[in-house]
Amino acid sequence: MARLVMKFGGTSVADIERIRNVARHVKREIDAGHEVAVVVSAMSGATNRLVEWCREASVLHDAREYDAVVASGEQITSGLLAISLQAIGIAARSWQGWQLPIITSDAHASARILSVNGAELMRRLHECKEVAVISGFQGIHPQSGRITTLGRGGSDTSAVAVAAAIGADRCDIYTDVDGVYTTDPRVVPKARRLDRISFEEMLELASQGAKVLQVRSVELGMVHQVPIFVRSSFDSPDSIDPHKYPPGTLICDEEELVEQHVVTGIAFSKDEAQISIRRVQDKPGVAANIFGPLADANINVDMIVQNVSADGATTDLTFTVPAADFERAKETIAAAKAQIGYERLDGATDVTKVSVIGVGMRSHAGVAAKAFRSLADRGINIRAITTSEIKFSLLIDSAYTELAVRTLHSLYGLDKS
Amino acid sequence: MARLVMKFGGTSVADIERIRNVARHVKREIDAGHEVAVVVSAMSGATNRLVEWCREASVLHDAREYDAVVASGEQITSGLLAISLQAIGIAARSWQGWQLPIITSDAHASARILSVNGAELMRRLHECKEVAVISGFQGIHPQSGRITTLGRGGSDTSAVAVAAAIGADRCDIYTDVDGVYTTDPRVVPKARRLDRISFEEMLELASQGAKVLQVRSVELGMVHQVPIFVRSSFDSPDSIDPHKYPPGTLICDEEELVEQHVVTGIAFSKDEAQISIRRVQDKPGVAANIFGPLADANINVDMIVQNVSADGATTDLTFTVPAADFERAKETIAAAKAQIGYERLDGATDVTKVSVIGVGMRSHAGVAAKAFRSLADRGINIRAITTSEIKFSLLIDSAYTELAVRTLHSLYGLDKS
Repeated sequence: MARLVMKFGGTSVADIERIRNVARHVKREIDAGHEVAVVVSAMSGATNRLVEWCREASVLHDAREYDAVVASGEQITSGLLAISLQAIGIAARSWQGWQLPIITSDAHASARILSVNGAELMRRLHECKEVAVISGFQGIHPQSGRITTLGRGGSDTSAVAVAAAIGADRCDIYTDVDGVYTTDPRVVPKARRLDRISFEEMLELASQGAKVLQVRSVELGMVHQVPIFVRSSFDSPDSIDPHKYPPGTLICDEEELVEQHVVTGIAFSKDEAQISIRRVQDKPGVAANIFGPLADANINVDMIVQNVSADGATTDLTFTVPAADFERAKETIAAAKAQIGYERLDGATDVTKVSVIGVGMRSHAGVAAKAFRSLADRGINIRAITTSEIKFSLLIDSAYTELAVRTLHSLYGLDKS
Repeated sequence: MARLVMKFGGTSVADIERIRNVARHVKREIDAGHEVAVVVSAMSGATNRLVEWCREASVLHDAREYDAVVASGEQITSGLLAISLQAIGIAARSWQGWQLPIITSDAHASARILSVNGAELMRRLHECKEVAVISGFQGIHPQSGRITTLGRGGSDTSAVAVAAAIGADRCDIYTDVDGVYTTDPRVVPKARRLDRISFEEMLELASQGAKVLQVRSVELGMVHQVPIFVRSSFDSPDSIDPHKYPPGTLICDEEELVEQHVVTGIAFSKDEAQISIRRVQDKPGVAANIFGPLADANINVDMIVQNVSADGATTDLTFTVPAADFERAKETIAAAKAQIGYERLDGATDVTKVSVIGVGMRSHAGVAAKAFRSLADRGINIRAITTSEIKFSLLIDSAYTELAVRTLHSLYGLDKS
């Protein structure tokens, strides 16, 4: 017997027929003797409609009211799934975020889960054999008593947080893909599904643009040691053996990886913009003068490349921001020109960041060097490079994205045979 | 300065444009210096869609889950109206039933409001000049912590309960008709809008089939002395003088009626079925033997007519039930035949109950007699009669409904000049 959290996203609960299908997935696990908590998203399209209504009512709407409106989507799904479970003979009840409660910060529309009260859930799972159907994406800020939401993809995070709170053996994320791939299969048809990946690698993959899981959910899984299993919700619920892992990807501790690859996956993001500040005065405090105003303007800076000054007086500094913030970032820097002290500002939006990720890099030298050579051979210019312990990222011209990703995918032996 | 509750039904909040219109209605009252709490229904059509989903998920669905699903409709509207109010510069926040809280019984899907905590509302109305936007139709059962709903039309009751809790001077019900009429204007074009009507008369009118207000809301208004004003939500919010009563009907204490009519209005209901039990044994306990099983089967019995026995041994007993329960009621009685002791059971579904209502009947004799004469003159047969202090009801063949209602409407001087 295991204790499981099963999470179903919007497309898996898009209509009553699919909700019934989800109920059959749950029944399979119950029949196998497991204790199950389910976390659900809003029916696909519902959240978009609610968000649109808020925008129509006022472009600058109160995030607290937005949260009250938008959280209703998950409330509907959790009730309907509880009904569907009862209809096939499974004891079940719905739980809204405020009922458990799922305690969050007060950062409405992008709140952070602080704690989940799992005591009553555990009692019911165990004593009453009752499936808990929990609305994902939402919580409550206890001081104000108001509903909060976690931001897009937040139901993944809800699921892992609930799993941690009830000491679940695993958190199964049912989604419209059947696992985590070495890279985007739409770009590289030879991309392979990974059987296992470490939390740290998944964190890099997720934050580098692979859209399978919300980053925060992987962080929580890592901190609380909850294995996360990404699997397809389109498999027939009745054809799966609940005692075996079906096709999918297990995100787990590094020690549990069966075989370690040097490179596990390649992520890329086209939503980047590059800004270069030329001949910045090379003196203490200049980085703070640049990135302070950007942070104040809520602009997320990603890659930062600063070279050692050649003339001892000035240097060039390059960084990337989300493409949507490009103009605003340039204006912010220009406004602080006197304070920073630089000659010229230039930038580009037709750039892509390609990241190569793998825990094996820790122990293997020259992994990045191979990439530089291979890309140079294909005439792909590298604008900037950043590295960390388990990944390196390259900024290149967008036009070469597909070529670069495919080249690196082959180079590191990731192509499926 | 007055303290007002304004209630808007589903058609008044059907889309964002209409919600904005509601916000302008509220602004008018705020600008006039009033303190305002608003109670809203779900956007028209939303509740039906949610109910249909529950039915699709399971015909016999758990009423607790049904309530969680259906209550989301009002949650959406209250958030959107708060946003719309803020957009025109009015401080506002939404309140769900569980947030205030609105405490109800645990009769899910048809819960009864037990109390409303108005303390925090009053503080905010007064100190913060903040409009409270409250989700109607819902509450919470405190022992289980679960969402409850009040049943169809429940938002009227929410509004009056909130008005009582915050000591409001008036509860304005904005609806798609501009008041309470002497009878249904679709049947009698000469029907007049009433300027005022007493709570007791309105109770009879509402429970006798006039669909303007939920009966329970009128009861609450009567008990807590909250004047209820029924008015149109389609009047332009900007053309109304907030210091005067616009067109509409004030439901108030009998003493506040400016002029008393003998008859105030005529209600009728076609959803009736008549059941007659022939030659019932006329002995103590027989009524209990008949109506006990019907109550157990949750069948609502309305008119009951039992004549004094002619032979001292048996009598005929007639009663009405909702047409939808006709077959079930007959089966229930047939199943209890041995216990009851009767000769024959017959009934009809093509019957209408017509009720004539007026507080003036208390002091005027012969009011009903005039009706019997007038209907007889037109060849309308009266199947059964019941009377109370301020109304009498007649059961007639459905085919004569319109003729009977028009005849009585003229007879009692209700036609508009």
